[in-house]
Amino acid sequence: MTADEFRRQGRAAVDWIADYLESCETRPVYPDVAPGDVRAKLPLSAPATGEPFERMLADMDEIVVPGLAHWQSPNWFAFFPANISGPSILGELLSAGLGVQGMIWQTGPAITEIETHVLDWLVEMLALPEAFLSSGRGGGVIQDTASGATLCALLAARERATDFAVNARGVAAAPGPIVAYASEQAHSSLEKSMMIAGLGREHLRCLPTDAAFRLRPDALAAAIAEDRAAGRLPAFVCANLGTTSAGAMDDVAAIGPICRDAGAWLHVDAAMHGTAALCPEFRGMHAGLELADSYCFNPHKWMLTNFDCDCFWVRDRSMLVRTLSVMPEYLKNEATASGQVFDYRDWHVPLGRRFRALKLWFVIRHYGVTGLQQFVRRHVALARGFADRVRDHPAFILTHEPPLNLVCLRHVDGDERTDAILDAINASGSAALTRTVLDGRSVIRVSIGQAHTGPRHVDALWDRLTALA
Amino acid sequence: MTADEFRRQGRAAVDWIADYLESCETRPVYPDVAPGDVRAKLPLSAPATGEPFERMLADMDEIVVPGLAHWQSPNWFAFFPANISGPSILGELLSAGLGVQGMIWQTGPAITEIETHVLDWLVEMLALPEAFLSSGRGGGVIQDTASGATLCALLAARERATDFAVNARGVAAAPGPIVAYASEQAHSSLEKSMMIAGLGREHLRCLPTDAAFRLRPDALAAAIAEDRAAGRLPAFVCANLGTTSAGAMDDVAAIGPICRDAGAWLHVDAAMHGTAALCPEFRGMHAGLELADSYCFNPHKWMLTNFDCDCFWVRDRSMLVRTLSVMPEYLKNEATASGQVFDYRDWHVPLGRRFRALKLWFVIRHYGVTGLQQFVRRHVALARGFADRVRDHPAFILTHEPPLNLVCLRHVDGDERTDAILDAINASGSAALTRTVLDGRSVIRVSIGQAHTGPRHVDALWDRLTALA
Repeated sequence: MTADEFRRQGRAAVDWIADYLESCETRPVYPDVAPGDVRAKLPLSAPATGEPFERMLADMDEIVVPGLAHWQSPNWFAFFPANISGPSILGELLSAGLGVQGMIWQTGPAITEIETHVLDWLVEMLALPEAFLSSGRGGGVIQDTASGATLCALLAARERATDFAVNARGVAAAPGPIVAYASEQAHSSLEKSMMIAGLGREHLRCLPTDAAFRLRPDALAAAIAEDRAAGRLPAFVCANLGTTSAGAMDDVAAIGPICRDAGAWLHVDAAMHGTAALCPEFRGMHAGLELADSYCFNPHKWMLTNFDCDCFWVRDRSMLVRTLSVMPEYLKNEATASGQVFDYRDWHVPLGRRFRALKLWFVIRHYGVTGLQQFVRRHVALARGFADRVRDHPAFILTHEPPLNLVCLRHVDGDERTDAILDAINASGSAALTRTVLDGRSVIRVSIGQAHTGPRHVDALWDRLTALA
Repeated sequence: MTADEFRRQGRAAVDWIADYLESCETRPVYPDVAPGDVRAKLPLSAPATGEPFERMLADMDEIVVPGLAHWQSPNWFAFFPANISGPSILGELLSAGLGVQGMIWQTGPAITEIETHVLDWLVEMLALPEAFLSSGRGGGVIQDTASGATLCALLAARERATDFAVNARGVAAAPGPIVAYASEQAHSSLEKSMMIAGLGREHLRCLPTDAAFRLRPDALAAAIAEDRAAGRLPAFVCANLGTTSAGAMDDVAAIGPICRDAGAWLHVDAAMHGTAALCPEFRGMHAGLELADSYCFNPHKWMLTNFDCDCFWVRDRSMLVRTLSVMPEYLKNEATASGQVFDYRDWHVPLGRRFRALKLWFVIRHYGVTGLQQFVRRHVALARGFADRVRDHPAFILTHEPPLNLVCLRHVDGDERTDAILDAINASGSAALTRTVLDGRSVIRVSIGQAHTGPRHVDALWDRLTALA
């Protein structure tokens, strides 16, 4: 593609996106397609000769869009908000246009330094512990997802607990089974990480929660004591600030001292809700965070930044780097040898990495701290208003007070009715909702956080819910 | 950012990219910056209020570009070609603009189906074994990197070898140490994967190679026999089609039967060189591939597709999915329960995933199979011509015949001289080269594959090398 053709088609693509995003609200949120419908529209083999770009843009309308769930619809209340924004899309575009690789500092110093710097900014913006700053022994890195952050934290914990014996000789070299702890509400990525790390899901303790679905600190202390008495190694605790199903906030201030006394690594996963700490009034959830060994949240959820962008900080970067570093000849270089630079390949699983911080840098600069705060406050206010309605309606039960922007409800008549309402709304295309189970009962999650969701979208959802109730 | 503002700034960003790529050739390939130089240009704190997008574009010129190594320069001969292209950049842009999530089929059917379909196209385009097609028991998925592919293959091998006991109860539940094998030239990601998977780097056998740096099949057979006799479990073999340092091609046809007889999982890593199989004349490297359990190559290296895009196929997807699947309530859905769809979250480590196949679909369609073939042939011809010159020059030694597009050379006077030449060229900004070690000696790798590299760039590099020799 020539430069002129790129300029021309680039404009068409930009316009296509603007049109798509403007039309998102009017589309059925979930598509009406059956397995195989999309593939049936594609030719069996790749074309032998090239096609004009116009055909690809046409297929965006004819094949792609009809086969998508529209995460950018203001009627999106499912899973989590996967917010994007103009500066973020353009940051992603410029990153793609540069086509650079930041696996080590040497291969693109600006890639690494801007990432480190922006993650330091965020420590201040979210009032995270100073120990996470790169100026001390800590530092931040962008992981693909909170799953990646959890895995890396677990690996570092595994190595710290065994003085790096597992890296060298395998899990069987540990003096006893390595155990991890979280509430039974913790994200599925923790179980997956236990499997990947060779620790076994059997050694993950899924502990009971209180009435607000928060990890019970007494249950944690008891489980650690029991494992220790049995010769096992309590190595890792994952606290959730905002669980997936319920948005529950584990009490880090109570959990932290238990982890410290046990010598266990405390990882705090604030994937969606961490963004709220932009606002001083929502920072209560961070109480006790100075005892955490690592922390993550996802700007790609509720902070207007394109996927993938999970921000992950550690208190002692040397543990993480030593856990994940391998040094072949072709990566040796003077800057690395000097010890003056970060080589981010040693902070996560992949070797290669694109310019990940560019879009995040743009988002923070475009909106400024106050702009991002307003955005969070609007969604929390909408969620609180929505929760008030649920609480006051005779047909619905608010399962618990929503800490921030996730409201959970069920029908008084039971699971069948709850499921039927959810299915009807999803099938109608008017909104997207996700089902979960709390206390053994079907629950509708209403996640309020899409960038363009306003009062009228929440009102419309409420009208549909009550009409079906 | 309003839609109008997005249209306006989007055009500016597209033009910025076109200008950047056109100017790439004239820039010093490696920047002249010291650790901290980039950060020194950034404000200490995030802005309280928003900044105009124009300032960000200005900072691209003032802060970002001077701090980058220019991977898109036609004078880029370092590491690997990280080729991008117009249709790929625009595919990435459109993917960012859609802002959709393909973690499961239900959350974006087109995301999953186009990916499966394009990876089936590639099976035909590269003449890979039919067992990798999704229509049978196999199938393909896009991983972030070859590191991710290696890790997932190793995990599936670990579980297959232990009947999923490790996932359940940890590595200590295996009846003996789980062992993996590769040549001493294998990529560092294999050692990293052994550490991540809890198997320990001690259980990776780095086997000797022949004069062309290929894994010696007799050494593999002997190592497997020795481990088996000692009660260890030979579970995984990684063959490289194009090693990082030397571009060496392991003999899959000889290795395959050894793996089959041992019951070991054979993973074939063709990260950079796999692209060459687009051309029938370069498919010799794939002989024996029908015995592989998994295979990967990176369109984000030598196939004009933006990072990240590693294509990974398995012969038996049920092994991979069973290895990586966890099923919480909030991800249960009818399509998944029907067994008629792929949920790609179960094919890799992360849960979330953006629309990864869009850019790859665009690249294949824009260039067509014949366009991509021409691209490969041009680079291989340039590399062969370059190797001829090295072979004929009295000051240089061609370490081995380059199988495809990677030429390795050293100075007859030894390491000091070789290193000095390499350092001088990198410091001059005229080209970028990578140093490695082969047979204990310093070697200059000349990787010829950047999209715009032509005869005059290779000629210029040769002139500099000979001037310094």
